[in-house]
Amino acid sequence: MRVSDLGEFGLIGRIAGLLPSPPPDVVVGIGDDVAVLRTSGPDYLLATCDSQVENVHFVRESITAFQLGRRVVAINVSDIAAMGGTPTWALVSLALPSDLRVGFVDELYLGMREQILEAGAAVVGGNISKIQGNMVIDVFLLGRVPADKFVLRSGAREGDMIMVTNTLGDSRAGLELLRHPALKVSKSSRDHVETKHLTPQPRLLEGRILAGSGHVHAMADISDGLVSDLRHICRASHAGAEIWVDRLPIGPESREVAYAAGLDALHWAMGGGEDYELLFTVAPAFAANVQRAIENETGTKVHVVGQIVDELQGIQLSLSNGERIPCPPGPLGWDHFAVS
Amino acid sequence: MRVSDLGEFGLIGRIAGLLPSPPPDVVVGIGDDVAVLRTSGPDYLLATCDSQVENVHFVRESITAFQLGRRVVAINVSDIAAMGGTPTWALVSLALPSDLRVGFVDELYLGMREQILEAGAAVVGGNISKIQGNMVIDVFLLGRVPADKFVLRSGAREGDMIMVTNTLGDSRAGLELLRHPALKVSKSSRDHVETKHLTPQPRLLEGRILAGSGHVHAMADISDGLVSDLRHICRASHAGAEIWVDRLPIGPESREVAYAAGLDALHWAMGGGEDYELLFTVAPAFAANVQRAIENETGTKVHVVGQIVDELQGIQLSLSNGERIPCPPGPLGWDHFAVS
Repeated sequence: MRVSDLGEFGLIGRIAGLLPSPPPDVVVGIGDDVAVLRTSGPDYLLATCDSQVENVHFVRESITAFQLGRRVVAINVSDIAAMGGTPTWALVSLALPSDLRVGFVDELYLGMREQILEAGAAVVGGNISKIQGNMVIDVFLLGRVPADKFVLRSGAREGDMIMVTNTLGDSRAGLELLRHPALKVSKSSRDHVETKHLTPQPRLLEGRILAGSGHVHAMADISDGLVSDLRHICRASHAGAEIWVDRLPIGPESREVAYAAGLDALHWAMGGGEDYELLFTVAPAFAANVQRAIENETGTKVHVVGQIVDELQGIQLSLSNGERIPCPPGPLGWDHFAVS
Repeated sequence: MRVSDLGEFGLIGRIAGLLPSPPPDVVVGIGDDVAVLRTSGPDYLLATCDSQVENVHFVRESITAFQLGRRVVAINVSDIAAMGGTPTWALVSLALPSDLRVGFVDELYLGMREQILEAGAAVVGGNISKIQGNMVIDVFLLGRVPADKFVLRSGAREGDMIMVTNTLGDSRAGLELLRHPALKVSKSSRDHVETKHLTPQPRLLEGRILAGSGHVHAMADISDGLVSDLRHICRASHAGAEIWVDRLPIGPESREVAYAAGLDALHWAMGGGEDYELLFTVAPAFAANVQRAIENETGTKVHVVGQIVDELQGIQLSLSNGERIPCPPGPLGWDHFAVS
């Protein structure tokens, strides 16, 4: 059996089975995006890592080193944001080809610096190694969260409203244009979606407000895709979900690109991934309050896109004609080893 | 200019210059092997990362996945040991080829599990990505150390005895045999040095006793090579050093391999690297005490190999004939981008 047969999540499950039960100071261990660790202080320590691998997550022709630096930090900050946490310190591990220009490394760090400063954190160490072939940029980010104010994937309850920040699918639209630059779309739409793809904006402040509200039961960032990340929430919460397809927030820019490409912006919204928006569930009575709080305090729009239902119903798509169909398992979500 | 022109340490220096001054909660930041971070509790938080890159640090034919798992954890534990710290939690970031056997990943994790349990820590998370080409195994290790009991590279004082644990050069001798398996040496010597290379034993208990003694002024683990790591201590401490060449602890196994290879075991002891022994400096009046304490409590031998001198003298080799020669700058030490 090969790694590609199991897929990323199959492999993670298998690995978790090989390791001993975590000690009591591990509040959340393997399987979540962020480890939650008990220290002697009043806050929990958060620890996460995420990487950018050349020719898997990026191609050098389509992203500047500065953008890449911002991006690799942003995707880690997004994980901390989805816990309601505050980033503190980062370590950076690089595997670089010997013939890489030093200027590339400079720009990479300047990009990391900008994003890490925006997050209020600092780079405190790391490691550099040589590699033959594709470069790897690994960021390890620490953070903290008040022990009584953090939100996991596992708290969704039947009846909760499923909500997301901003729009979905823009990042995937940006990727489409980077892969097919000749597609004819307006410059403003191109800029919008390419920026969303290349330098996503983690929802740090939104995450903190949501966790602090006390009304958010489960939260994740949308890195794999709405359906895939919702599936993680549902599995961890022993719940099902209904996605209201015609309520999905799809921006005009993404629609324009999808039209030009002859593809479906709805698919990108549900499975494109890498939007780094927040996905969360809230008791219905508080949904409007939470929505208003985020919009007033941050300017970021919040949309209700579905509802948590009984686990037996699985994940269903509720279409505009009233029909409900089970959400297809495979294609709507990013899996490193399954996607070609 | 290319990365290979600057070398690993040149690059780290350049990167440190690009980043803003660290915030006050960073006790030790970029440039040391381990970041030391202030939290709300009585201990400092330690954070380090080190990787194993295929065809740079290992070739798949010469190491089992289990040994590789042990090794990548051990080299991180060694960094925590050199601070006098205690490892707590690890995150593992893997970049794996799609066609890798799942059995390889299993064995890798079983090896990591064994070494991490020996260190008293736990794997709490990580990340898995696809890569085309050479695999990368990145481990991020956290630890703690009492704020009044940790040892840095930067505390060496003129007159200090320079001491090391165990023997030097065995790992390099093991590498020689893995590269040239046909070399004729006894089975026991082969086993000894190959084991030292493939599954180094971090000196965790020794590090804690040394730091706890209050007499150790500076400490590092020997990852790059005695001379190179001593140079780091001297640079950080604004000191020079005299290495007493005929006092270097070279084991009979390493001598046997060097003889068979027509090479010099002394060079391996000074520049071979990857021994993961501890290198530390102690005021002369306490050197014998410290030596006895380590040997009695752990069974690990400790050797005096030189003395800290004035910074202006640089690093000198003191030969058996009484001659002193300046230590050559280049070849005696591992640098990822300088070594072919």
